[in-house]
Formats: sequence, structure tokens, C-alpha cells
Amino acid sequence: MTDQHGTHGTLYGVGVGPGDPELLTLKALRLMRSAAVIAYPAPDTGSSFARDIVASHLPEGVREYAIRIPMQTDRFPIQAIYDDAAAALTPVLESGEDVVVLCEGDPFFYGSFMYLHARLATDFPCQVVPGVSSLMAGGAVSARPLASLSETFAVVPAPLPTERLSELLDQHDNLVFLKVGRHLDKVRRVIASAGLTDRAIYMERIATDRQRCLPLAELTDTSAPYFSLIQLNKRWSKPV
Amino acid sequence: MTDQHGTHGTLYGVGVGPGDPELLTLKALRLMRSAAVIAYPAPDTGSSFARDIVASHLPEGVREYAIRIPMQTDRFPIQAIYDDAAAALTPVLESGEDVVVLCEGDPFFYGSFMYLHARLATDFPCQVVPGVSSLMAGGAVSARPLASLSETFAVVPAPLPTERLSELLDQHDNLVFLKVGRHLDKVRRVIASAGLTDRAIYMERIATDRQRCLPLAELTDTSAPYFSLIQLNKRWSKPV
Repeated sequence: MTDQHGTHGTLYGVGVGPGDPELLTLKALRLMRSAAVIAYPAPDTGSSFARDIVASHLPEGVREYAIRIPMQTDRFPIQAIYDDAAAALTPVLESGEDVVVLCEGDPFFYGSFMYLHARLATDFPCQVVPGVSSLMAGGAVSARPLASLSETFAVVPAPLPTERLSELLDQHDNLVFLKVGRHLDKVRRVIASAGLTDRAIYMERIATDRQRCLPLAELTDTSAPYFSLIQLNKRWSKPV
Repeated sequence: MTDQHGTHGTLYGVGVGPGDPELLTLKALRLMRSAAVIAYPAPDTGSSFARDIVASHLPEGVREYAIRIPMQTDRFPIQAIYDDAAAALTPVLESGEDVVVLCEGDPFFYGSFMYLHARLATDFPCQVVPGVSSLMAGGAVSARPLASLSETFAVVPAPLPTERLSELLDQHDNLVFLKVGRHLDKVRRVIASAGLTDRAIYMERIATDRQRCLPLAELTDTSAPYFSLIQLNKRWSKPV
């Protein structure tokens, strides 16, 4: 590196897309192949979804660092986890080696890479490589445009209170509800109250082997996996 | 093809990302390389931005079809342009050959591919391949996360009236104003009225050689190119 940080390595936050390994960008692939260390979020036990996406592209002998994040983060000091990860990656960057952090979807769109970025970007060169978001992958799967022309588009986390969900639904032409999970019934009620159930499409595990996509009206499940979303287009009709 | 459409070719709407040829996905590259015909939007005269992005990857001898779209679309019958394009691509698909339509950013996020999709997807197999949006590329360039946790995120086309822009600004944690162009002064006034100028970042021609990114407060221009956006994060502070 020949920047203001001297001979330090670069921290890359690299979006690996929503699930299909073919939705990796050429830039993500190049950086992964030249990285000294590849880091990724992972659950307490078991495999990392971000790593699984790119497993077939991982170079032989690359050093790996799993950032283990408990599922029930409210019970654990989440800040300490990122403190530890930053401390572990610091000597690698100081030695001049590059670190690639794999991020599901896009690194800066509801992603956890921001926590590492906040801890390391002051001391080391840092670059974010955008990825295909599950938002855009959802529109491709539903075969329905997310937004067009001068319509507005809102991204709404499903954990928000009912009143707030209703307010946002009232105000926007197009919405995607994220992180539906155990909030499925609440979101369904909000949409039904507005008489818009027939405009909503439910999707889970987009761009993976276990992908599901069906009209919300046909969904009988009462809860959903964390990686689920509902796309709603109020004024949907065939564009002319 | 062995689907319900018999031996017809497939229409692919392929996102080519915001500008950097390295932000192409592996899937986009594969489909481009095996397509019989590559189609793309283009101005009346001059080169197509979507084609320029992938020019180095275009296979030798591929047939090309430019969908010429006048800049001043209000003066022209835009529907007739897509009718003509669909009519031109129909015999290719009928003959069993695949058509790849190149789309800047993502095909279904404020993209024009929806017009071809509406005309051809009933008669031919059609697949949308999501791409990296300028939205996510903007967050990477500004080095500021677009949204996190249970924050809301709104995409707001700048041509909307002042009152509507103010209302949306009031209601959301994070916003991106798209298509800023000649609406720059209006958007700037709306943001200033809310006292949020210091939270806004202006970007144009993201992920190209001509990229600019600066705090809105430092921007002295009074108009902007069409491919410009303003990212605003109300509660922006370093994540901990």
C-alpha cells in the first residue's frame, strides 16, 4: 500500500450477494482470491452463510477468521464481539496483509460490517465493495418491478411497531418489509387492514436452493425465517 | 429450452451495475457471453451507458440491438419505442435464440426493462438477473452505511413536489434522493429547511472515472447530472 497509512494492509468489506454464488461480482472474486485473511460473520456453532455463498471460490490455504455472533444478541455484549474481531485483525493489517470481510448481500445495507468499519477505518485503509442486495434479488424473483418513475420506495424493518408500519404503508407507493421472521402475523395484519393483501408477495431464502416465493394471500405459515421479506407494490399494474 | 414455451429463446434482463465493469456479476458475464443478441437502451445519438460498462466483455460477433430513447421523452411516444423493440426481438426469441437486455444498475429498480418485460414475458420465458444498484454503490463511496438495525430507509425521486419531499424527510431515518439533476436546488432547500444539510452527501456518476462525492454543504453547483443522488442519514454517528 502506498497511501497515508504507509505499508498497512487494506480492510475490504465485500458484498457477496443474497445467496447464489453466481451473483458475486468480479471485484469481490478478485479481492477474495488475493486476500491473506478472509473474515465472516458466523453463528455460535455451524457454518457461516456468507462463507457458504462463496465456498467454491475460496482460495487454497487462505487464513480464515470467523466472527462468532450468538443468535440471541440481547443476552451478549455484541460490542465486545466486534472489539475482539478488530483486535484480532489489527496485527494482520499492520503487517501489510489485506483482509476481506465477507458480507451477505451488501455490506452497508443493514449489514454488520459497519461495526468493524467503525473500529478499523481510522487506522487502516478501508474499502467497501457493494454487492447485490436481497432487495433487488427479490424483485427479480417476484418478477415485479420494485419501483418506477417518480414513485417512492420504502424499506421497512418488520420489528417496528404496528402504528409505524401502518403509517409507512399509508405513505409509500412501494415497500419492502425486511426481517419479517416472527413478525409475520403483525405485518400481515397491517397489510390486510389497508386492503392491500393482494398486492403483496412473500419471499424467503431468496437466491438459494430453499427459496420460496408466493402471494402473501396464499401463505398459511404463522412465522417465517429471519431471511424473509414481503414486497408490496400499491399501484401495480402492467406498465405500458 | 424445455419449458412451457417449447423451443423459444429466453429474454434476460441483466443488471450490469452502476458503472465499474468489475461490479458485473458472474451470472451477467456468463449470460452475455452465450447470448445471440444483446440489446440495450441508448440515447438518440451516441453510445449506450449500459453497453459502455460491459464493452470489454462483449463477445466477438454478437448481434446488437440499440433501443434508442430520446432524452426528451415527453415529446415522443415512449410506448411506441418499446413496441418497436419488442417487435424486433420477437423473431429472435421465436427462433430459439436468447436475448440479453443490458440494464444500468438493477433491471427492476427504477429501470426501463419493465417495459420490455411487460410486452414479452407472457409469450417467452423471461428471467431478471439482479445487479448492484447505484444505491448500494453510493453507500460504498460515501463510506457511510445506508441503514441499520430497525431504521427505515426511503428512496425518494427528486422530481416530487417540495411538500412531498419535506414530508418524507420528516418521516424517515435514512433517505436517498434519486435523479437529483435539475432538482438539486429544490432538494437542497428541503434539506436545509429541516436543518439536516450537514448529514447529507452528494454523489454523481458513481463508480465511473468521473465520480464525484462531497458533503452537500460544500457543493456550489446549482444543477447536477441525471445520474446523481444525495444520501442523508439523520442519526448518523459512528456505530459502537
